[in-house]
Amino acid sequence: MPAFHHTLRIRYQECDAQGVVYFARYPEYYDVSLTEMFREAIGSYQAMVDSGVDIVVAEQSLRYLGAARFDELIDVAIAIDKLGTTSMVSSYAISRNGDTLVEGQMRHVFIAVATKDKTPVPDHIRAALGAYAAQTETGG
Amino acid sequence: MPAFHHTLRIRYQECDAQGVVYFARYPEYYDVSLTEMFREAIGSYQAMVDSGVDIVVAEQSLRYLGAARFDELIDVAIAIDKLGTTSMVSSYAISRNGDTLVEGQMRHVFIAVATKDKTPVPDHIRAALGAYAAQTETGG
Amino acid sequence: MPAFHHTLRIRYQECDAQGVVYFARYPEYYDVSLTEMFREAIGSYQAMVDSGVDIVVAEQSLRYLGAARFDELIDVAIAIDKLGTTSMVSSYAISRNGDTLVEGQMRHVFIAVATKDKTPVPDHIRAALGAYAAQTETGG
Amino acid sequence: MPAFHHTLRIRYQECDAQGVVYFARYPEYYDVSLTEMFREAIGSYQAMVDSGVDIVVAEQSLRYLGAARFDELIDVAIAIDKLGTTSMVSSYAISRNGDTLVEGQMRHVFIAVATKDKTPVPDHIRAALGAYAAQTETGG
Repeated sequence: MPAFHHTLRIRYQECDAQGVVYFARYPEYYDVSLTEMFREAIGSYQAMVDSGVDIVVAEQSLRYLGAARFDELIDVAIAIDKLGTTSMVSSYAISRNGDTLVEGQMRHVFIAVATKDKTPVPDHIRAALGAYAAQTETGG
Repeated sequence: MPAFHHTLRIRYQECDAQGVVYFARYPEYYDVSLTEMFREAIGSYQAMVDSGVDIVVAEQSLRYLGAARFDELIDVAIAIDKLGTTSMVSSYAISRNGDTLVEGQMRHVFIAVATKDKTPVPDHIRAALGAYAAQTETGG
Repeated sequence: MPAFHHTLRIRYQECDAQGVVYFARYPEYYDVSLTEMFREAIGSYQAMVDSGVDIVVAEQSLRYLGAARFDELIDVAIAIDKLGTTSMVSSYAISRNGDTLVEGQMRHVFIAVATKDKTPVPDHIRAALGAYAAQTETGG
Repeated sequence: MPAFHHTLRIRYQECDAQGVVYFARYPEYYDVSLTEMFREAIGSYQAMVDSGVDIVVAEQSLRYLGAARFDELIDVAIAIDKLGTTSMVSSYAISRNGDTLVEGQMRHVFIAVATKDKTPVPDHIRAALGAYAAQTETGG
């Protein structure tokens, strides 16, 4: 079950000529919400970057079940499915008034800022993210 | 094999503070290229909409293998994997100088503009898109 | 003096390869904040549109004095300089911790949704927006 | 008179729920076109940045006379009004089939990438940009 929730309001410029949120904006809502999850977990995403570690998206998938409109409030729920040695798989659901609009999954890889090479998830971040994990596994 | 190619140049505002294209922009490159494929196939995407039929994204998945930077030229290659009764599954690859940066798959559904309900792929569009299809199946 | 304030947090994708907010995003912060001002003033921007009246931007100008970065909180302060027969001139200042980053001015025109023609500011909107006006004049 | 022209096609996601290009996208069209002007003038914008010099927007103003729609082709015409010691003032007009939709003016400042401080326009860039200048003055 999703362990973190963040509420966002749809902006005018996020909607397209069909009058609904442009399909490529939903992963951005996830990303904004992930930043908030990191704030709660480790203080700040930028602090992690400043310490030499960053994350990049390696894979993502989404299913669209409904469409949000301008000025509506949406809930973004995130859970960490797996914390590997150097990777993080998370799931999310975006809903409006309890109706799921989008379901997605993301795979991030932790990298060293200096080299852009894969790097192990730092221990304190692994520990902190554990609170949002449906399951924690090693490997991968 | 991809049946349609479109070349795009990366815009400054599409890159983020990591200095590379923001992950959520790549599906937008697909979308811009799909519009060009429709132009080649049926004259214009807007003409289809004006005739009462539109398409919406039902599902998408992406794998990120590399990253494009500001001012680089990328090639977006699209092939239609399957044309169902009311749906279209397509694959795409975004590459730079022959190096694949992103691989993705999209599922669109054809809808009636008036009702937003699923509608069969119009015959002339089915016929025109056939030229870009790796395989054409019925069902789905 | 600005009569309405709204706080926003800078999103990752709003920053460009220079590591700061892309210059064209600041008017979007104004626009998001104006929607909040309308919510406070008249209930909802969308309700105004549904009643047949919309606003479009006719003119804008901005001066850039500083730059916001990812994850920073900014304050957007808006005041209405002039409510004409069919137009609204507003000023705004975007600041971070009391330091002004951007100063701007916007001129909107009220239009009828059906015809896209200029239309007088509806009385109840004029009355409601008066609370944010540095001065209210007729004409223009 | 504008000395440089660039043609762009409106993307679906650049239009908002009003069915026309969102007002904040037009300066982005200028920016994309300026990059092309720099390509013609000095080879590449990025080469200038790599040599230690960048430009930032200090001021902009726009007037909206019309609205572009999805899939339309627009012409962006740019002229340099003034090349100061450390600044560049340019004007632009965005038109569709000869009808002007947007008129704008931009003031950029040249900065040293390392320090972010103002820096004089490099001689070879000043010489190259002269070709697009309605007038060239010193000072400012």
